[in-house]
Amino acid sequence: MKAVTLRRGELEVIEAPVPKPGPGDVLVKVLAAGICGSDLHSATHGQELIDSTRAVAGFELFDPENPIVMGHEYCAEVVEYGEGTRGEIPIGSRVTSVPFLLRGEQPILIGYAGVESPGAYAEYMLLSEDLMIPVPDSVPSDIAALAEPLAVAVHAVNRGGLGADDVPIVIGCGPIGLAVIKVLKLRGIGPIIAADFSPARRALAAELGADIVVDPRVESPYEAWKDAAAVGETERFGRQTTMFPGFAYRPSVVFECVGVPGVLQQIFAGAAPCTKVVVAGLCMEEDRVLPTYALLKEIDMVFCMAYSVEEFIEALGYLSRDDVNIAPFITSRIGYDDVPEAFSRLADPEQDAKIVIMP
Amino acid sequence: MKAVTLRRGELEVIEAPVPKPGPGDVLVKVLAAGICGSDLHSATHGQELIDSTRAVAGFELFDPENPIVMGHEYCAEVVEYGEGTRGEIPIGSRVTSVPFLLRGEQPILIGYAGVESPGAYAEYMLLSEDLMIPVPDSVPSDIAALAEPLAVAVHAVNRGGLGADDVPIVIGCGPIGLAVIKVLKLRGIGPIIAADFSPARRALAAELGADIVVDPRVESPYEAWKDAAAVGETERFGRQTTMFPGFAYRPSVVFECVGVPGVLQQIFAGAAPCTKVVVAGLCMEEDRVLPTYALLKEIDMVFCMAYSVEEFIEALGYLSRDDVNIAPFITSRIGYDDVPEAFSRLADPEQDAKIVIMP
Repeated sequence: MKAVTLRRGELEVIEAPVPKPGPGDVLVKVLAAGICGSDLHSATHGQELIDSTRAVAGFELFDPENPIVMGHEYCAEVVEYGEGTRGEIPIGSRVTSVPFLLRGEQPILIGYAGVESPGAYAEYMLLSEDLMIPVPDSVPSDIAALAEPLAVAVHAVNRGGLGADDVPIVIGCGPIGLAVIKVLKLRGIGPIIAADFSPARRALAAELGADIVVDPRVESPYEAWKDAAAVGETERFGRQTTMFPGFAYRPSVVFECVGVPGVLQQIFAGAAPCTKVVVAGLCMEEDRVLPTYALLKEIDMVFCMAYSVEEFIEALGYLSRDDVNIAPFITSRIGYDDVPEAFSRLADPEQDAKIVIMP
Repeated sequence: MKAVTLRRGELEVIEAPVPKPGPGDVLVKVLAAGICGSDLHSATHGQELIDSTRAVAGFELFDPENPIVMGHEYCAEVVEYGEGTRGEIPIGSRVTSVPFLLRGEQPILIGYAGVESPGAYAEYMLLSEDLMIPVPDSVPSDIAALAEPLAVAVHAVNRGGLGADDVPIVIGCGPIGLAVIKVLKLRGIGPIIAADFSPARRALAAELGADIVVDPRVESPYEAWKDAAAVGETERFGRQTTMFPGFAYRPSVVFECVGVPGVLQQIFAGAAPCTKVVVAGLCMEEDRVLPTYALLKEIDMVFCMAYSVEEFIEALGYLSRDDVNIAPFITSRIGYDDVPEAFSRLADPEQDAKIVIMP
């Protein structure tokens, strides 16, 4: 089978043996695989990712010296059941799963292991039967592969704990920002303010449901929030401390979906007092902040990572709804041979949002 | 009258005219005035404080070229009522207030204005009648001056939103850390873990209610938390995402009460996943963090500043309770002439926690 490996930051398309399903495993044929921003990080900032994961979670995410097969966003077709499986989902059915391969105490993270347990950057991969979820017939395979990034957004919005009064500001309209916009829209939270330097991404943001879209070079998203969130003479929001006697604006919740150094301080400087900042962007480098800004404004910060199984299932459910058109999200469909070139292309936000591999 | 002024970072004891109460004002004689950590900041990092306040709140906190009279923690005696006052609290009564002088749209922050509206580092000061609160007879004047820092702690604990399951870890046992410990104890939250490099402050932390006190050079407060927060085989806490399948520990809430660069990253590195960090320490310099740590652990952060009038009143109420002994908090009582030397002394955590001026 064809597989795209990553080793020492370099991608390579190779021929690899089809993996053998072990006990509880299911061999599946990949129908669609999304390229995730964290895959780009694994290629460009692999060591930082490995170091952080070791420091935080106490395990080696991967070994940069050994080839791994990435790909943790996928839709696949059931091919063969391994030993001790129930085989309830018929051969030929389309499935997805949260990206784990159950292996006793320590599950394998799909997308960070070698060719023997490859991610979806390979024609065939292994899933755990216990985690497999059927994909509804109404959901095309490339769209089904979006369940994973949409689950990230569902989790971020849940972590934000937005109430009916909150006005969200999405900073950065890459795949995660766009997915956050879609989830906010589906939940009826708004008006949604979105900001991105790229005209293409701003157009996508509007198409996916943002109500007010700004180019931050031209207009501050926080000024746009002021216009959108102002309330009547008598209404007041906020914590009403001696510092903040209450605001004539509905509260702001800022979603940080950029993940590069400096953005947090920009948010501290620009956002209104008592803003909640939901950090969904994965910033791989050291960042510098002026804590006094966050303190004087009584900022709340909520850092987000991954999702629960329930959130994943909720995301997949959204994709099967008639009223949810998430197709504009996918800007390119490519083959395995095109993956190395796609990684270069994704560095330029003007060209692409989500690229999906369709074998 | 005697007054201690701050100008260009230098303290000076001067003779100044007794201020005249304007409409709505009350002239009071200072009985006790606490020296606050933020007063030290005004002296050593005045410009940073001015710059941050301008950037965040859009006003000049003070002019470093003009002398100001600090002191926003006080107990005082009513001397003379100004025009248009009701005069309900008898002359000679002891009072305190939140540190504002009402002046139409823009109140004056007590402790950041000149000798005409001095803070409590002067023998006489002005209060707004509408904000004055009588001090109960059972509360000595030096203790009453602690209502303000205790209100900061009440607010920090409220902002932390701790539940019965949470186990607090207080990093830094200066005045704010000690006040947080006292409020946690009064609320029945615990066990309380406290950490400080200074043996004297560790002893104070234990005296004020910390259950487990560690020297971070010897023992990690997060390891101490593990020992104290472990639960039975079947109990599980946490968000239970795909990253975090639940923990066998009660959740940790870390109170950052140090306020120097590097502490936040130490907390990100040391604290358990899903920790809530309540930032009460005022870090005046740029700080560096590795956001991946906070993200992979799904940290929540809550920055705290000041308090509400209700929280101030709650704090004063605590001070009048028979079962609340907060006296150890005050490590020195000094006169106005000793203030410049006290500022130098407070740089060394071994010597003092709270110094109170008793004219």
